[in-house]
Amino acid sequence: MPNGMSHLFIPGPTNVPDAVRRAMNTPMQDHRAPDFPELTLPLFEDLKKILANETGRVFLYPSSGTGAWEAAITNTLDRGDRVLMSRFGQFSDLWVDMATRLGLDVVCVDVEWGKGVPVAQYEQHLADDPSIKAVFATHNETATGVASDIAAVRRAMDAQDSDALLFVDGVSSIASVDFRQEGWGVDLAVTGSQKGLMLPAGLSILGVSEKALEASTRTGMERCYFDFADMLKTNDAGYFPYTPPVPLLHGLRVALDLLFAEGLPEVFARHHRLAEGVRRGIAALGLELCAAGPEWYSDTVSAVWVPEDVDGAEVCRIGFDRYRTSFGAGLSRVAGKVFRIGHLGDLNEVTCLAALASAELSLADAGAKVELGAGVAAAQTYYREALAERESRSRLPRADESK
Amino acid sequence: MPNGMSHLFIPGPTNVPDAVRRAMNTPMQDHRAPDFPELTLPLFEDLKKILANETGRVFLYPSSGTGAWEAAITNTLDRGDRVLMSRFGQFSDLWVDMATRLGLDVVCVDVEWGKGVPVAQYEQHLADDPSIKAVFATHNETATGVASDIAAVRRAMDAQDSDALLFVDGVSSIASVDFRQEGWGVDLAVTGSQKGLMLPAGLSILGVSEKALEASTRTGMERCYFDFADMLKTNDAGYFPYTPPVPLLHGLRVALDLLFAEGLPEVFARHHRLAEGVRRGIAALGLELCAAGPEWYSDTVSAVWVPEDVDGAEVCRIGFDRYRTSFGAGLSRVAGKVFRIGHLGDLNEVTCLAALASAELSLADAGAKVELGAGVAAAQTYYREALAERESRSRLPRADESK
Amino acid sequence: MPNGMSHLFIPGPTNVPDAVRRAMNTPMQDHRAPDFPELTLPLFEDLKKILANETGRVFLYPSSGTGAWEAAITNTLDRGDRVLMSRFGQFSDLWVDMATRLGLDVVCVDVEWGKGVPVAQYEQHLADDPSIKAVFATHNETATGVASDIAAVRRAMDAQDSDALLFVDGVSSIASVDFRQEGWGVDLAVTGSQKGLMLPAGLSILGVSEKALEASTRTGMERCYFDFADMLKTNDAGYFPYTPPVPLLHGLRVALDLLFAEGLPEVFARHHRLAEGVRRGIAALGLELCAAGPEWYSDTVSAVWVPEDVDGAEVCRIGFDRYRTSFGAGLSRVAGKVFRIGHLGDLNEVTCLAALASAELSLADAGAKVELGAGVAAAQTYYREALAERESRSRLPRADESK
Amino acid sequence: MPNGMSHLFIPGPTNVPDAVRRAMNTPMQDHRAPDFPELTLPLFEDLKKILANETGRVFLYPSSGTGAWEAAITNTLDRGDRVLMSRFGQFSDLWVDMATRLGLDVVCVDVEWGKGVPVAQYEQHLADDPSIKAVFATHNETATGVASDIAAVRRAMDAQDSDALLFVDGVSSIASVDFRQEGWGVDLAVTGSQKGLMLPAGLSILGVSEKALEASTRTGMERCYFDFADMLKTNDAGYFPYTPPVPLLHGLRVALDLLFAEGLPEVFARHHRLAEGVRRGIAALGLELCAAGPEWYSDTVSAVWVPEDVDGAEVCRIGFDRYRTSFGAGLSRVAGKVFRIGHLGDLNEVTCLAALASAELSLADAGAKVELGAGVAAAQTYYREALAERESRSRLPRADESK
Repeated sequence: MPNGMSHLFIPGPTNVPDAVRRAMNTPMQDHRAPDFPELTLPLFEDLKKILANETGRVFLYPSSGTGAWEAAITNTLDRGDRVLMSRFGQFSDLWVDMATRLGLDVVCVDVEWGKGVPVAQYEQHLADDPSIKAVFATHNETATGVASDIAAVRRAMDAQDSDALLFVDGVSSIASVDFRQEGWGVDLAVTGSQKGLMLPAGLSILGVSEKALEASTRTGMERCYFDFADMLKTNDAGYFPYTPPVPLLHGLRVALDLLFAEGLPEVFARHHRLAEGVRRGIAALGLELCAAGPEWYSDTVSAVWVPEDVDGAEVCRIGFDRYRTSFGAGLSRVAGKVFRIGHLGDLNEVTCLAALASAELSLADAGAKVELGAGVAAAQTYYREALAERESRSRLPRADESK
Repeated sequence: MPNGMSHLFIPGPTNVPDAVRRAMNTPMQDHRAPDFPELTLPLFEDLKKILANETGRVFLYPSSGTGAWEAAITNTLDRGDRVLMSRFGQFSDLWVDMATRLGLDVVCVDVEWGKGVPVAQYEQHLADDPSIKAVFATHNETATGVASDIAAVRRAMDAQDSDALLFVDGVSSIASVDFRQEGWGVDLAVTGSQKGLMLPAGLSILGVSEKALEASTRTGMERCYFDFADMLKTNDAGYFPYTPPVPLLHGLRVALDLLFAEGLPEVFARHHRLAEGVRRGIAALGLELCAAGPEWYSDTVSAVWVPEDVDGAEVCRIGFDRYRTSFGAGLSRVAGKVFRIGHLGDLNEVTCLAALASAELSLADAGAKVELGAGVAAAQTYYREALAERESRSRLPRADESK
Repeated sequence: MPNGMSHLFIPGPTNVPDAVRRAMNTPMQDHRAPDFPELTLPLFEDLKKILANETGRVFLYPSSGTGAWEAAITNTLDRGDRVLMSRFGQFSDLWVDMATRLGLDVVCVDVEWGKGVPVAQYEQHLADDPSIKAVFATHNETATGVASDIAAVRRAMDAQDSDALLFVDGVSSIASVDFRQEGWGVDLAVTGSQKGLMLPAGLSILGVSEKALEASTRTGMERCYFDFADMLKTNDAGYFPYTPPVPLLHGLRVALDLLFAEGLPEVFARHHRLAEGVRRGIAALGLELCAAGPEWYSDTVSAVWVPEDVDGAEVCRIGFDRYRTSFGAGLSRVAGKVFRIGHLGDLNEVTCLAALASAELSLADAGAKVELGAGVAAAQTYYREALAERESRSRLPRADESK
Repeated sequence: MPNGMSHLFIPGPTNVPDAVRRAMNTPMQDHRAPDFPELTLPLFEDLKKILANETGRVFLYPSSGTGAWEAAITNTLDRGDRVLMSRFGQFSDLWVDMATRLGLDVVCVDVEWGKGVPVAQYEQHLADDPSIKAVFATHNETATGVASDIAAVRRAMDAQDSDALLFVDGVSSIASVDFRQEGWGVDLAVTGSQKGLMLPAGLSILGVSEKALEASTRTGMERCYFDFADMLKTNDAGYFPYTPPVPLLHGLRVALDLLFAEGLPEVFARHHRLAEGVRRGIAALGLELCAAGPEWYSDTVSAVWVPEDVDGAEVCRIGFDRYRTSFGAGLSRVAGKVFRIGHLGDLNEVTCLAALASAELSLADAGAKVELGAGVAAAQTYYREALAERESRSRLPRADESK
């Protein structure tokens, strides 16, 4: 392997901050020791702050985010329950697939890739079919870089007096963009450790509303590993029903401390600023986003259409081989047609400029007619303005004062 | 916290070797990158060597060992299937509980704690009831320090021409004591990362026979996270159906390298030697093991009855508070009556002597009448002899020559 | 290399606590950055607390402790200056050698190995020879495990109205046993990072009195790397005249935090307790210390005479090869006649019991007639009593309450 | 501290590769253990390859590079010896200062900052003054980004039949650009761990020719810490006269492995390519280098004149505060007039583009009229061409094939 640092711009797993890596590198300890709850109990509380979940619970599973999808379903729904879903990308598609395989009666709205949750159609379905027990929404579709309006989904449900449970996949949004479990009436909020929480994969996080907790006590499929009840029995004392991934818990402690030290509003503002710079850069290169319009823009990942005569997979391959840069490939039906720049987690302006510079090179080498430097310049211009505005307007501490 | 190293003698998670810790401390990388299979494909192959599973498969789940229990059941059995199980400790008990909750028709043989799988009764059940679809056996009951004879279970099944699937929990045995998935006809062999593999928890390992694989294609419960089929679709190319816990995979690489460098037969011999020394020490203190006789002795954990007037929980508390030593507490029906010394993973003679020395102090402080030093002396005497015999008899390289 | 943890019982470098190792593992940073003094300035202040040096300075050199020996001499003495020294072990011997090679006129008192600084003879020399410009004393001779009475040296100097500078080698004493630079009138106090400060080697620490600082401005040999003046010019602002070993500075921060959290008096009491237990153990084995009597006992290292027919080097070799234990070998004129147990730094009772257990095995294998377990038992008995007394008498928080 | 990675572009200490950081993070070990030479002896051999020193020796001092300057002088020269030096930047200046303070009779040629060693004047001095005992040359002046022609210095010496010793400061050149100790007749080659060797500071490296070794046996100043003789006595067996910085030795092992795996010619080519891209970028911004012409260009650091109305210190401050980027400040007489971009060590094309992008922003914010993106574009254009040429011309493996 040639020398030189690697550059990771996939939409997860994201770069793990050094402080988090250090925290994970501890000698092993007894997860049943009397001092273990000193570590775990504050984690549960602090994750509720991340989710803006005041009255519910948070469960931590040793699993990928997919596990929390399954936990949400199997604890609160029965086989045959009718649920409303939509798909418009690889990950919303996979959730539909899971729901189907687990035996739900899925009403699935297919949406053009590039758009997100179809709120109006959801409302119509809810109006037409009062048997819908749950509504599923993917907050941020990682495959297409599309964000959806969860508050609007809730409003549509309320408008139809639906008492369905609201399931939200926030895997690539939570901890990076504004998320309000309580405010938006989200009953089951799914995320994972390897995105905005800046940890390796291995821990899934499930925010559960009181309503969903209550539902789990009287319904749900056969389950054991992901059972809420086993968690409830042990979590209150700070323990787990089975051996937890201790290093990830230590890393989570530090990741949360970093996020709170920066301040969640500032974290969200930073993600928006970085994303907007990347979008300006992409536009300056004459390229278009997969997201069909600004109302769908994701602040955590940008999926970029490559020119017609260019192979998106080749862009990724060149980035990886020649420029030591990992971009996200196009998945499923946009394979080869897009490449993706993840801009979430432990990143700043200069890191994103490196992403654009590397993308320009990779595109050019793959045959795209892009003006080298043009994307970087557009992003730089935006970042200068945005940082100046931020400093003047909000009197927020500057980077140098906020330590 | 006062200075001074902690001493971890629980039966898992075990001490993580420094080389493994270093390997896990890597910058994050893309689990879909072209070079990722260079890491993963050899792991699958090498884990088959650990399991002595020549013709089947190994699956790696981001989960605790409990997850692999569930994966084994849900992929190969249907609700209502009759299965034969036995319980004689906290962990065999939990597996019975899971099987019941997942809807199996469990024929459960209750065994006195201190003994293990009741082979003769198993054979009788198999003779009486040809509808038994699966036989479950806990190879090493971690709560009582009891090992069972899996080969004998297989012989009993063969004697009755049973074509039931054989499920074995090897969580606290595999990679520490001899295990032969193929040789013993084990169809589903469950283990976790945090025991003999010397990693943190977070990765469960499931060895699957060809027969079990075949079964999974035509039967099994609704499942998704733990579905074999999703793994099969992606594993062959070196990928996973969802984001794997990358640091654990790097750590697993080094842990396997360490085990192979020592040599599995030598690893097993070391565990036996260390365990026997601990047992000699316990006997010299006038204490008895929970294991009801030598045929049940576990080489990875010793559960020790405390004297009647002594509280086993107090032994653990004193060990933890005063001597910075973590022992395993008694669980469930032996809570307060035993304490446990884990002696598996990254340990050697001197480490085990420290365990005994610390146990002596903790016992004495808790009110037990033990002769300080007596346990250590007995273990020392055994270790000297065993090491001398090992060096003379087998002409194996000594520690200093085997680097 | 076979699996199993190594056991390090040399009198330095000592075991590095995990928290210190983590702190050293940081990305590189600019040692001229505006925020660098936030790290360095408190280090200078806190090291003065370690030395009990209120009015002087502390210099940090990127070097081994030997470098600080040289810095002390070359900054404050001229070639030809008459100095009073003594030697009674490998390290006091090397300091005499250095002083001679650097051109000092050394009056050297040779003392039987096993005893320390000969205060009465020092006083006689001072009385006889008013031209003595400096008095050198090795606080803790690491080769023989002998501690000397620095306060008594100061009293002897004061009794003779000597205005010589007092040089003290505290490499293996400072931060482990009581040291009072100001109280004892020590002008130049030398230590290193790799002993009581629980860091790797690479940083030497020199405490300098006002008087010595003043001397350095008008005298001293040609020097550059170790020049006080260059340090003075840059240290006040938090910088160094050349690139410092940044990871060691981060590690030092945490090591100091650990020491202060435990409390220096408690750190010293712990070292005394651990040492006394080891001494009881040695005595119970029928062996004798190199230190000629209790007044010379070192609380950081015990040098043990092996029986006449036993080779001390063989004890060390067996410990290393067979029991993965590093003991200190006998050096120079006691080579082969002693082996040494370092008991300083990040250790506790159980760790020291492991040291004794391993020493017993190594001695026995090397042909010594020792009763296995006897040393451990004696130390255990003492530790139980000492901990009980500590808890009852001083109402100090117990280990479990002092977190 | 806000989230987001820091960007380090100072000319040392340089970014430490993750593999090196991992290697340094080991438990402490005995530096007198029998297996220690397995680590150290190959290091001495491999460092000779780095220096292209076939017949001499390499010494490793626990010190900064300044220590090796002093070691070189004090071991081979006597006070009063006449030596020929030149100064044209902060570091060559400091070496002159040291030589003077150590008592050498320095003939110093002052050169305009921006140029390097004045070979013609050197030759004239050598012709005029046969008493010159040593010639000093700074291979790469880190303060001005100026490289000098050491081979030409040697030719000048040979032309005058000088048998003076040739001292070369290669601190910021060795292991990054071509260096030939034997080929250029360098008698004392100085470097440090924290530049091209990609380690933290704390280890200085001194390559010594046979001639210099021989000189050290019959001459030299009083010395002890840096004495060659003490090293010679212990190094051959793999040990050191005092405790070495063990983690740095482990890190050095891996750093050397990384350099050899890439191949030294490829390492040098990479540094040239990266540097040339940075220079193209600087030129495209309308800025000029401190180096007075291409013959003086350094491939490891570029010192850039800021526009007259811009404060170079402000550029650095803004870079650090706002863009989390560390640039090198102007030192001494170019303070405020230049800022420096270090481009040595663990870097690649994308990293250097990030440096340029960040420099553009910092310059613009500091008031410089630079076209954002212009520097990045020029460097990108060059990198594309250079990488293409490299791939086609030399048939060297591409990045993706050279793992």
